[in-house]
Amino acid sequence: MNEEVFKFSLNCPLPITDYKHVSLAHGGGGSLSKNLIQKIFYPQFENEILLAEGDSAILNGGSKKIAFTTDSYVVNPIFFPGGNIGELAVNGTVNDLAVSGAEPRYISAAFILEEGFPIDELWEIVLSMKEAAKKAGVTIVTGDTKVVDKGKGDKVFINTAGIGFQRDGIDIAPENIRVGDKVIINGNIAEHGIAIMASREGLNFKSPIKSDTAALNGLIQEALDFTNEIHMMRDPTRGGLASSLNEIAEKGGKKILIYEDKLPLAPEAAAACELLGLDPLYLANEGKALFFVGAEQAEGVLQTMRKNPLGKNARIIGEVVEGGASVVMKTKIGSSRIVDMISGEQLPRIC
Amino acid sequence: MNEEVFKFSLNCPLPITDYKHVSLAHGGGGSLSKNLIQKIFYPQFENEILLAEGDSAILNGGSKKIAFTTDSYVVNPIFFPGGNIGELAVNGTVNDLAVSGAEPRYISAAFILEEGFPIDELWEIVLSMKEAAKKAGVTIVTGDTKVVDKGKGDKVFINTAGIGFQRDGIDIAPENIRVGDKVIINGNIAEHGIAIMASREGLNFKSPIKSDTAALNGLIQEALDFTNEIHMMRDPTRGGLASSLNEIAEKGGKKILIYEDKLPLAPEAAAACELLGLDPLYLANEGKALFFVGAEQAEGVLQTMRKNPLGKNARIIGEVVEGGASVVMKTKIGSSRIVDMISGEQLPRIC
Repeated sequence: MNEEVFKFSLNCPLPITDYKHVSLAHGGGGSLSKNLIQKIFYPQFENEILLAEGDSAILNGGSKKIAFTTDSYVVNPIFFPGGNIGELAVNGTVNDLAVSGAEPRYISAAFILEEGFPIDELWEIVLSMKEAAKKAGVTIVTGDTKVVDKGKGDKVFINTAGIGFQRDGIDIAPENIRVGDKVIINGNIAEHGIAIMASREGLNFKSPIKSDTAALNGLIQEALDFTNEIHMMRDPTRGGLASSLNEIAEKGGKKILIYEDKLPLAPEAAAACELLGLDPLYLANEGKALFFVGAEQAEGVLQTMRKNPLGKNARIIGEVVEGGASVVMKTKIGSSRIVDMISGEQLPRIC
Repeated sequence: MNEEVFKFSLNCPLPITDYKHVSLAHGGGGSLSKNLIQKIFYPQFENEILLAEGDSAILNGGSKKIAFTTDSYVVNPIFFPGGNIGELAVNGTVNDLAVSGAEPRYISAAFILEEGFPIDELWEIVLSMKEAAKKAGVTIVTGDTKVVDKGKGDKVFINTAGIGFQRDGIDIAPENIRVGDKVIINGNIAEHGIAIMASREGLNFKSPIKSDTAALNGLIQEALDFTNEIHMMRDPTRGGLASSLNEIAEKGGKKILIYEDKLPLAPEAAAACELLGLDPLYLANEGKALFFVGAEQAEGVLQTMRKNPLGKNARIIGEVVEGGASVVMKTKIGSSRIVDMISGEQLPRIC
């Protein structure tokens, strides 16, 4: 909890003595629901579209194609090193739009609260959503609040859906990757997964690893301003780098080769993975994207990214090569290893 | 469970012997997640946009304004007389778009499943979402699946967000209601609330009252084809008729007078309310909308609606009169009663 948030927490506008915790009536559609919405959500997410309070938000269209995405967030714990469920929900949806080649614009926020959830924790989450939305340049234009009885939910689940407008002149799809394309990632892998795992297990590392949650639309825009020769992008969240690469290889019908010694992995993260027996290739990222870039433009994209704080550790980690749909890693000792999709997930409720 | 659904259930494409219940790994982003999505969701919701499997669905835009809405559904029980959580989630979001004056077009579907939830129940829900979407003429273009550990959710929660395009020439807003406007509802009130309540409490009425869940976009389109003089529409769901009227009166700064003897209430519903001590004004509806219509067009709108099965019991139930923001009911015995907004909800988890 940083100082600014704490200061705001003290000013949480619902009289805490009256409503210290969420009650079922806060989700009932009556005046208590209204109270929660008008005192907690509206003042923070304030904008004309939201405050029109219609059954739908009314947005200006345009001739561009619309990108539309949704994700529910059930991460446990809801507060973790480097962030909380609220900013994760905003950033995650922003990133899903951005990697589709769209400029993220509008976000919805739907809360499922468990009866008894502390109002001041909700307040802190809402503040961080406001900040995340501001940072990403998106507006929270519509929302919903439901309350479930104690023991039928887990504190708070948040769904965010998002709308963006497609950028002209690009075509992002796994089918577009070509032999020779370089695979770039904008920085260190596995940090969100490790942060959640460590915080869930109560592990205290000397230098705690923080979630990398961040909105990547700015970074992606800079890369696309540099070249249209970006053929595919994806944010490797649940299931990690390995799962995203496998999905792309399969859909694109190509072989992707990655180099173990090029993978950006912080020494603390490598140590944590060793200690916990986790494979960083399968751990979730929340502020990373994979870029498949034409060979001639790859170095330029890399240099462009490195000027942005979110890309300062960007690397070319592999390339698309001749061969059937598969992901293969050249290991540090020079051997080759097939990188499979795992069947489950090392860590449930990672996002 | 109707026969057709049951037949499909038997053909549930996941080998039930292997995966009779949802496991945490079904939400992990690995191959089990993929299996669930590709075998359960894709074949039913099939359309090109969804099957592109991008991080966002890519939709054609246009010059029209965009309506955008979201709702999470946590109804308990998930199967109830007249419907289930899946069709409720589709119809509810369709209706939120339609009452905003938009033509509903695209829907997202995000599932939060509890570990151990029977796959065949999920299958039945998905089938009914497919049917509901087809009936309403909307396409399910993007989605998400998360799984939470047993005891941290309640079977299934569904979020649907929706996108529609605004109809030209109309302006729907509570601020637009005028003195003289007639208030029309398209049929019997309180039936969703009673159906949920009865089913939750295990009550068996002789003639069971069914949820009125339905997509109203067709009916609304017919009304708007008849006249642009519809100033406001709203679907009185959570909190019922009383809460929606109060919201409109407050936002519009007008007095709304309704007549108790004009309220369409089935005799079985009236009896159930009496038995259970419930006020039908506060009970949820899921296939009803309120229309504020210019006095001269009201009769025509009424006759138009009555030609549609979803409006066959439409009634003029009240009007906007001189006076401060309030809702007043003229009772059957001739007295006047202020209709307040309730503070909580008679029934939690009604939708």
